Amino acid sequence: QQKGIRGKLNILFDAMEGWIVVLAVGVASGILAAIIDITSDWLSDLKEGYCETAFYLNRRFCCLGYDDEQIECNEWIKWNTALQARSASAEFWTNYLFYIIFSTLFATIAAYLVKVYSPYSAGSGIPEVKTILGGFVIRKFLGWWTLIIKSIGVCLVVASSLCLGKEGPLIHLACCCGNIIPRVFPKFRYNEAKKREVLSAAAAAGVSVAFGAPIGGVLFSLEEVSYYFPFRTMWRSFFCAMVAAVSLAFMNPFRTGKLVLFQVVYDRDWHAFELLFFALLGVIGGLYGALFIRMNLKIAAFRQNSWLRFFSVHEVVFVSVLTSIVSYLNIFMRVNPSELVANLFRECVGGDYHNLCNHSNHWKPTLLLLIASVLKFFLTAITFGLKVPAGVWLPSMAIGACFGRAVGLAVHAWQLNNPNFWLFASCAPDGQCITPGMYAMVGAAATFGGITRMTVSLVVIMFELTGALTYVLPIMITVMISKWVGDAFDKEGIYDGWIRMNEYPFLDTKEEYVYNTSASQVMTRVEDLMVIDTTGHNTLDSLKQLLRDTGYKGFPVVNNKAKNMILNGYISRSELKYAIDKARGKQGISSSSSCYFSSNLPVLDSSPFIDFQPWMDQTPITVSHKFPMEMVIELFRKMGLRYVLVTKNGQLLGLITKKDVLRHLSVMHHPNFSDNDDLQDP
Amino acid sequence: QQKGIRGKLNILFDAMEGWIVVLAVGVASGILAAIIDITSDWLSDLKEGYCETAFYLNRRFCCLGYDDEQIECNEWIKWNTALQARSASAEFWTNYLFYIIFSTLFATIAAYLVKVYSPYSAGSGIPEVKTILGGFVIRKFLGWWTLIIKSIGVCLVVASSLCLGKEGPLIHLACCCGNIIPRVFPKFRYNEAKKREVLSAAAAAGVSVAFGAPIGGVLFSLEEVSYYFPFRTMWRSFFCAMVAAVSLAFMNPFRTGKLVLFQVVYDRDWHAFELLFFALLGVIGGLYGALFIRMNLKIAAFRQNSWLRFFSVHEVVFVSVLTSIVSYLNIFMRVNPSELVANLFRECVGGDYHNLCNHSNHWKPTLLLLIASVLKFFLTAITFGLKVPAGVWLPSMAIGACFGRAVGLAVHAWQLNNPNFWLFASCAPDGQCITPGMYAMVGAAATFGGITRMTVSLVVIMFELTGALTYVLPIMITVMISKWVGDAFDKEGIYDGWIRMNEYPFLDTKEEYVYNTSASQVMTRVEDLMVIDTTGHNTLDSLKQLLRDTGYKGFPVVNNKAKNMILNGYISRSELKYAIDKARGKQGISSSSSCYFSSNLPVLDSSPFIDFQPWMDQTPITVSHKFPMEMVIELFRKMGLRYVLVTKNGQLLGLITKKDVLRHLSVMHHPNFSDNDDLQDP
Repeated sequence: QQKGIRGKLNILFDAMEGWIVVLAVGVASGILAAIIDITSDWLSDLKEGYCETAFYLNRRFCCLGYDDEQIECNEWIKWNTALQARSASAEFWTNYLFYIIFSTLFATIAAYLVKVYSPYSAGSGIPEVKTILGGFVIRKFLGWWTLIIKSIGVCLVVASSLCLGKEGPLIHLACCCGNIIPRVFPKFRYNEAKKREVLSAAAAAGVSVAFGAPIGGVLFSLEEVSYYFPFRTMWRSFFCAMVAAVSLAFMNPFRTGKLVLFQVVYDRDWHAFELLFFALLGVIGGLYGALFIRMNLKIAAFRQNSWLRFFSVHEVVFVSVLTSIVSYLNIFMRVNPSELVANLFRECVGGDYHNLCNHSNHWKPTLLLLIASVLKFFLTAITFGLKVPAGVWLPSMAIGACFGRAVGLAVHAWQLNNPNFWLFASCAPDGQCITPGMYAMVGAAATFGGITRMTVSLVVIMFELTGALTYVLPIMITVMISKWVGDAFDKEGIYDGWIRMNEYPFLDTKEEYVYNTSASQVMTRVEDLMVIDTTGHNTLDSLKQLLRDTGYKGFPVVNNKAKNMILNGYISRSELKYAIDKARGKQGISSSSSCYFSSNLPVLDSSPFIDFQPWMDQTPITVSHKFPMEMVIELFRKMGLRYVLVTKNGQLLGLITKKDVLRHLSVMHHPNFSDNDDLQDP
Repeated sequence: QQKGIRGKLNILFDAMEGWIVVLAVGVASGILAAIIDITSDWLSDLKEGYCETAFYLNRRFCCLGYDDEQIECNEWIKWNTALQARSASAEFWTNYLFYIIFSTLFATIAAYLVKVYSPYSAGSGIPEVKTILGGFVIRKFLGWWTLIIKSIGVCLVVASSLCLGKEGPLIHLACCCGNIIPRVFPKFRYNEAKKREVLSAAAAAGVSVAFGAPIGGVLFSLEEVSYYFPFRTMWRSFFCAMVAAVSLAFMNPFRTGKLVLFQVVYDRDWHAFELLFFALLGVIGGLYGALFIRMNLKIAAFRQNSWLRFFSVHEVVFVSVLTSIVSYLNIFMRVNPSELVANLFRECVGGDYHNLCNHSNHWKPTLLLLIASVLKFFLTAITFGLKVPAGVWLPSMAIGACFGRAVGLAVHAWQLNNPNFWLFASCAPDGQCITPGMYAMVGAAATFGGITRMTVSLVVIMFELTGALTYVLPIMITVMISKWVGDAFDKEGIYDGWIRMNEYPFLDTKEEYVYNTSASQVMTRVEDLMVIDTTGHNTLDSLKQLLRDTGYKGFPVVNNKAKNMILNGYISRSELKYAIDKARGKQGISSSSSCYFSSNLPVLDSSPFIDFQPWMDQTPITVSHKFPMEMVIELFRKMGLRYVLVTKNGQLLGLITKKDVLRHLSVMHHPNFSDNDDLQDP
């Protein structure tokens, strides 16, 4: 308790420290996202050609002088020009080949880097981040190596033709920043709760830079990722997400002032009858989600359990070659998904984009879009789970946008051909009535919702992409329907599915459990536990023996084990170990010295002894043996407990750990759950 | 467990029921808000004149043909014209008089209605809504009478010249809808938890219609109002808020397509150096908040404890006359605050508004604005707490907007006179650099933040008012500074202050408590409790006697009171009463029949007995006597407990109720807290 100006300054710094940390995390995430955007854009364009004036420029920057994107600029050299392949077929085959080669090269390098340097960089990282925020430690998952390799990897894979996005990895990378930066501050280094707060904020920053949606990021962190979200965390997360967005805007990676490519502004409103089609898109989105999750998990399980797991790099090469061969032939699959989504979202004002706005011929683009959405579905299902950094959000949105735009084009054609049909009565007689771009956006929201089962945060993200409150209602209805349809098949989103498949110890905070089990049915019975008896003769040796013989994470301490087993406290394995190590250094303590766990310390005994009480949890949370299991689960979830002791009139009956709870839950839900000991309690 | 289509349909309806309820609440809130907007606008304009063509039209609707607001329209008859007072002074005095008369008339009717029909309609209602969502029942607070009287009252007071807003009351009214509508559905009528979920959603809808900010509403409900906010609630709240906003937009009360008058669009960006002035506004906002809360609570305490409390209507008359006399003389105080805020937020593009955009004369409007903000401060401090429906948000925003615009004008004048000053180096040489309207908005956010200490939700509300992400960062920084400055004086916002003053039993979920007390220091000791002894001879008569003699809310049940007092369970007063009442009707039961509270039921005893076990909580939550008090508070907050039993090795030592916790907390914070028994546990 310091007084005076110095004390006040210390308090101020103390209060500021948290803000400084999230500020740094936000800035780092924003800059990292900008670098990844720029690099991957350049690499991606390298598949088509190179910039003559400066090889390190991507197509857009190379052609910055040319206003219209449609005009070919002279500085940008396509590969066929470079190789002087001039006939039409030679041009096609040269570019096709280069597309396949570069695409596969990028994917292969990424897969190799991941395999050799950082296996944790694979996948989106969101299931693991969820698990970590749920209170478990996966060592090195958020370390330097992951940060570096995943950053490089994500640039490469996004530039390849693989069906994946950088959104999930960006969240993982932001969390890496959120793990590494606080290490500088002692207050954060040793405080798990504070660390987790920063991680929640970092996750928000990740979404903020991935979608240019800071508020959506905070809600995502709240809804999807964070386990325990006190209000202070929310405010800090918001700050962190804002700072990240501002940093990204400052870097301005696309030179358009937009935070992400696919931000749109519509200047037309929607009509009530369109809700019908939006609802249809919602149903499709839900079906897509359910189907995708099942298929993807099946493929992933096969990958994990078969010979395939030894050939992760070969698999990436194969999928990459396959994807690029298929993708090049359909313009809607050739371009990178972020650009595709941007183009599909766009209204038909100003330029056209691959005949999407040619009102005389609707059928060709509609067909191409439908083919693209189906092929992308299968390719994404194979791709998500490969051992490269890969997110599933953007491909899902691309699939939805393709399908949505196809539906939009169809409706548009219908309306143009039958303007007097009763459904279109509310259309203005002159001017365009249907905006197919809006259908693409609604479709993207539907598939996004179907796969992640996010609700509020998804709607807010889409709202921030358009900036207008008008479109929130249709998006909301679509997302709701998509979620309902998806939930009718399986209750879990893709991340929960992966968590279950990987058997991560994660206790869902959203599900409601109503079972008629009591604590005594789930607990590990006292007979199967090792307890420390205060009335027994404990020596340093006997305790060391106990540690050596058993692998338990902790030991209940009881009075008079033989008779009434009255609970006295609980000592965790690490505390016990620490106390023993500390005691050994003391004078007069030998390995046969007595150890005491109760307040009945010997007063007349002259030989030195050790008092273990300070290391013991003297007030563990206890529940009665008849206590309903739902309430125990609530206790675990809301209080962040790791164990609860079960007593009957003060007498110890058993112990329930978080793992017992998880095992109990999974037995209820999924009969073939097994224990996973790779993951450690913190 | 029904099967088949019928069962599935039942399940579907069951799942839909919650959505239908929030849909209805949303629609009701939206329509109610629209009606209040239209009515209060009309009444407000009645102070100035009336519409010749149709007396029930307000000025804007009356003059709908006239495009420019500045031109006087012929259909709108000012009072001086009606009374043919033609000289300048006669015109002034006539209008002044009518202003005072109407204003006072409206306020007086409102005060009278509140006093006679519904005292609960007074004030903003937010402190009470918070308390109700915290788990306490205030009977009739959200009933029909409150809904009707507060709706009428809020129209009247908003139309009067009193310094108050309709935002708080709108939230209260939405909660009334959220309380009344679910009564139709049996599932909701009897389930307190579900009722509270709907109330949380209703609060979100209230903010949604008050500010046209559905997302801000949800976050407000989460941040400020709701005690326990599971994720499902969030999604429903969002839906409810959206529906309310859409309903309001559909009614289009302002005929501008805007949901609230003061939505703005800026087409200029801010400069980094302006953050300095925004920070200054933040400091002022924080100081304003701290000062206002202290002053307002002092006045309110005086009102409650002096003779003044018997003259609530007279007081309203007095304040109303005073306010209208003062307000008429300053144009920025004469118009209703919602219009004022809208005009102050506006950029100087297109029309001018009372010389705010006249760049040659900055000083007159600046001075008028400063006078307005100071006078409004004192008037609002007196007004908030009067026995009329009254919110404090809008007047706070108006004060901040006045002050902010004044600062903006000053900075603008400075920049115009010294364009080469180093601070303004980043200004473009031609064109306007400073946007005073933005200063008004930032100032409004600062005072709003200072008074409510809201954070995320406030920023999101302001974001939704402008719709552009660009202005979020300055607003955020301002709100943050305002909160820090305010918190440096008092940690509580205005609502928490009122809750404390009214001694509502509310346990704040946001504060962190770190004390070195243990459960045994706070508990009511077992010696001071009435316990039921299972080994004693309990008869119906003795139990009835117990109920008659004591006022306790519940009784611990112990084994062998005399010897070891082993805890067996807990029975609440109401359950005991119910069980006794039920037993009395049974055959063979007399008032001397034995009552049993343990599983040792008599088997050989032939006389009839009553088993009270089913009515008893057989697994109450217990904590050890050494359990730290912070953890007990956490248990209460997170598990929504109402009591916890303190034991030592199974032996009952005492009882801690929610009230004990509150008393403990308030003793720590505010030494002169007393018990309040008007409010009841549910």
